[in-house]
Amino acid sequence: MARSESAIYKLCLVGSLIVNLFFGVSLYVGRRAAWKCRSDEVNIRGSLSWSGRAAAEAESAAAEECSGHGRAYLDGMVVDGRPVCECHTCYGGPDCSLFLPSCSANADGGDPLFLEPFWKQHAESSAVVVAGWHRMSYSFSDQTTLSKELESLLRKLHSLVGNAITDGKHILFGGGSTQLLAAAVHALSPGNSSLPASVVASIPYYALYQMQTEFFDSAGCSFQGDTARWNNATNTTRDIIEFVTAPNNPDGQLNEAVLHGPNVKTIYDRAYYWPHFTGIPSPADEDLTIFTISKLTGHAGSRFGWAFVRNEEVYQRMYMYLELNTIGVSRDTQLRALKLLKVLIEDGGREIFEFGYKTMTKRWERLRKALSMSKRFSLQKIPPENCTFFQKVRDPTPAYAWVKCEREEDRNCLEILNAAKILGRGGSVFHDDDRYTRLSLIRSDDDFDLLISRLEKLVSGEDGAKTM
Amino acid sequence: MARSESAIYKLCLVGSLIVNLFFGVSLYVGRRAAWKCRSDEVNIRGSLSWSGRAAAEAESAAAEECSGHGRAYLDGMVVDGRPVCECHTCYGGPDCSLFLPSCSANADGGDPLFLEPFWKQHAESSAVVVAGWHRMSYSFSDQTTLSKELESLLRKLHSLVGNAITDGKHILFGGGSTQLLAAAVHALSPGNSSLPASVVASIPYYALYQMQTEFFDSAGCSFQGDTARWNNATNTTRDIIEFVTAPNNPDGQLNEAVLHGPNVKTIYDRAYYWPHFTGIPSPADEDLTIFTISKLTGHAGSRFGWAFVRNEEVYQRMYMYLELNTIGVSRDTQLRALKLLKVLIEDGGREIFEFGYKTMTKRWERLRKALSMSKRFSLQKIPPENCTFFQKVRDPTPAYAWVKCEREEDRNCLEILNAAKILGRGGSVFHDDDRYTRLSLIRSDDDFDLLISRLEKLVSGEDGAKTM
Repeated sequence: MARSESAIYKLCLVGSLIVNLFFGVSLYVGRRAAWKCRSDEVNIRGSLSWSGRAAAEAESAAAEECSGHGRAYLDGMVVDGRPVCECHTCYGGPDCSLFLPSCSANADGGDPLFLEPFWKQHAESSAVVVAGWHRMSYSFSDQTTLSKELESLLRKLHSLVGNAITDGKHILFGGGSTQLLAAAVHALSPGNSSLPASVVASIPYYALYQMQTEFFDSAGCSFQGDTARWNNATNTTRDIIEFVTAPNNPDGQLNEAVLHGPNVKTIYDRAYYWPHFTGIPSPADEDLTIFTISKLTGHAGSRFGWAFVRNEEVYQRMYMYLELNTIGVSRDTQLRALKLLKVLIEDGGREIFEFGYKTMTKRWERLRKALSMSKRFSLQKIPPENCTFFQKVRDPTPAYAWVKCEREEDRNCLEILNAAKILGRGGSVFHDDDRYTRLSLIRSDDDFDLLISRLEKLVSGEDGAKTM
Repeated sequence: MARSESAIYKLCLVGSLIVNLFFGVSLYVGRRAAWKCRSDEVNIRGSLSWSGRAAAEAESAAAEECSGHGRAYLDGMVVDGRPVCECHTCYGGPDCSLFLPSCSANADGGDPLFLEPFWKQHAESSAVVVAGWHRMSYSFSDQTTLSKELESLLRKLHSLVGNAITDGKHILFGGGSTQLLAAAVHALSPGNSSLPASVVASIPYYALYQMQTEFFDSAGCSFQGDTARWNNATNTTRDIIEFVTAPNNPDGQLNEAVLHGPNVKTIYDRAYYWPHFTGIPSPADEDLTIFTISKLTGHAGSRFGWAFVRNEEVYQRMYMYLELNTIGVSRDTQLRALKLLKVLIEDGGREIFEFGYKTMTKRWERLRKALSMSKRFSLQKIPPENCTFFQKVRDPTPAYAWVKCEREEDRNCLEILNAAKILGRGGSVFHDDDRYTRLSLIRSDDDFDLLISRLEKLVSGEDGAKTM
């Protein structure tokens, strides 16, 4: 009896000891985890000492939903302690839920808000905290006004995308490609102003080229209009500066230089040369090529562009221009650009282009469908291109539709579209016929949806339109 | 035997069960604590969902002490996963602890790092988080490129400080006062370029005025040098554009316009017209006045300036210039400027000026003391001014010392200072005599301390210097 009792106690003891062992191990492991958790918490609280307030403010502003038809910004107007919603075109009310039915669809400006959803999806990786003492000096530690880190990322991005050769070329930063275009014209103009250079661009061309050249009225150059007029003028001793925009704004064509010769200098505006908009048949490898973040990431408000320049003298003149004009680009902007580019490059530089290409492809499908029944309006035709980025032959998906009014009597296409409550930009703005109108396809989803809706209505009311 | 064995097992079992109970309770309590800890962590992370990572990155960079002789930036070079220290002049090594004894004291550039400690003290209120989708559009909701909130704060600040009348004047933003100076010259130049305006400034003047005017080579104006030569030329029909810098760079004098008349246009560069540097006898109330954040908050790297313009036509021309040049100032920069200005205004706009004035006062005391025994070097003399801000008559504390070499044979003052391992900027850069050198007094404490040390050594070695 005592022996079996002893055996039971022995058995229970062994069981209890096993449980103790189990508990002991669990407790040890748990305590380590708890220590780590508390340590992490201290780290989080400790490492968010001074930035916590700013972070909370930003998230508070971002938390305003604005009914999905707008957003609140950190530096927007504040009402009752809350940042106000800034609504998409045709939406209003305090939370942008009010649709304004008589409002015109905005297909005018080139605000690249089609990329905004991408950045909202990448909120964590794309946010940047700017400390109060961030880069107060006029220059970086190498005495230049360009961030070496940012330069490095840009070169890497071009290499990943394959849309530009950057080796052996100088890089410059500007306040948008806008500033670089002006700097380029100035740098390529002869010093001897008794023989100013003629500046030309092929119709239809981006209005800014002419507006800048004429307004800044540099003694070294003057705008002379359409390149086509100068095609046989290569025997002139005058310098010619030709703008080549590829893909072109407004019609999306992958333009090439028209003029050649020892007195011809070419400025390549490659703002749209990204897989969002076009196939990339080969990397751009020109003497002077300009890009902008506006059409790459969509951050038009940041005012950041960059140029690759082969010639040393041209580079030095452009650098001097940028220094005397603004002492370089804001360090705040360069920090932001660096952050955004890091997001792009993190995954090998593919995700944003897949997003952009997919978005633009869908938009062009809807646009073509909306105009498919129309005999009155036609779209530009651009041949498919081989794309080394997507490794296939693909249709272009340009940022703008270059709509043509086909009827003889429809001399002012924009007026017709305006009457149908569609805003666009008339052909004459691009020095072409007013039978053309540029419609921006890169704005917000709301803008695009309303554009399609209005186009469908316009086409459905068309005499002679084929009915479904 | 079996009975005592049984008793032992029984005893051990009871003991083990007690331990079981203890472990069990501990484990339960520990698990609850761990759950709470993880929950807290989620809450902290949750209330800072997408900005947490950016905040942690920024604080990590800021945590690099760099021995107090430098700092690490978020966008600087990274080595072994840590941002590198960017050291003050004459300091080196991975943590900036290495003093380089043969290095020259930097009193050359106008980097306003004397204000950096202020911002480090205000780390929490001055940080700003920029969301990935912040202000991607080309314009604000009012279709302009100027933040209304920022405009409002600037007008308020000037009202608090009393250094400018802004009512009834248009405001413009630029990439530093740099861009606004160029825009102003352009806007004030006549449209008819057969009679270009003459641009003048009083010696000694800031080199940029001439460099810009000559380099940009606008057909509408040409730089004509010292204002004094034009003092009797008011009967000319040509337009004259006079730069008036007050306080002046380099000599700190509160200059006034020299030329007057219907054909005279004046650009007032008021970059230094803040209580850090000068008494404020009255608010500036001119037709065209330009300020910069560089010399107000010290953020020279941000490239942000603003101008008040009375005349509508001049304002429109300047606005057009800024739009065609860069489509306005980066929204990232405007957000940052807004944050910094909020810090200034929070306490009624006094603290930064008290900080700046106190710092500059101490520096001038030390500078005067260092040169008090010298017969070889003299400092500019500026009379005390009544200051409406500090409500007293006060000595000026200009940003720069305008040192003069008094000895006949010391024709190039800069060379003498260079030989004594002091970097400065020679008088001829300001179109004055090379007997003058500008020494910057607004750089970091390290720069200033080394400057004083070198000056003391230079003066102590002076023949004929009065000995203590």
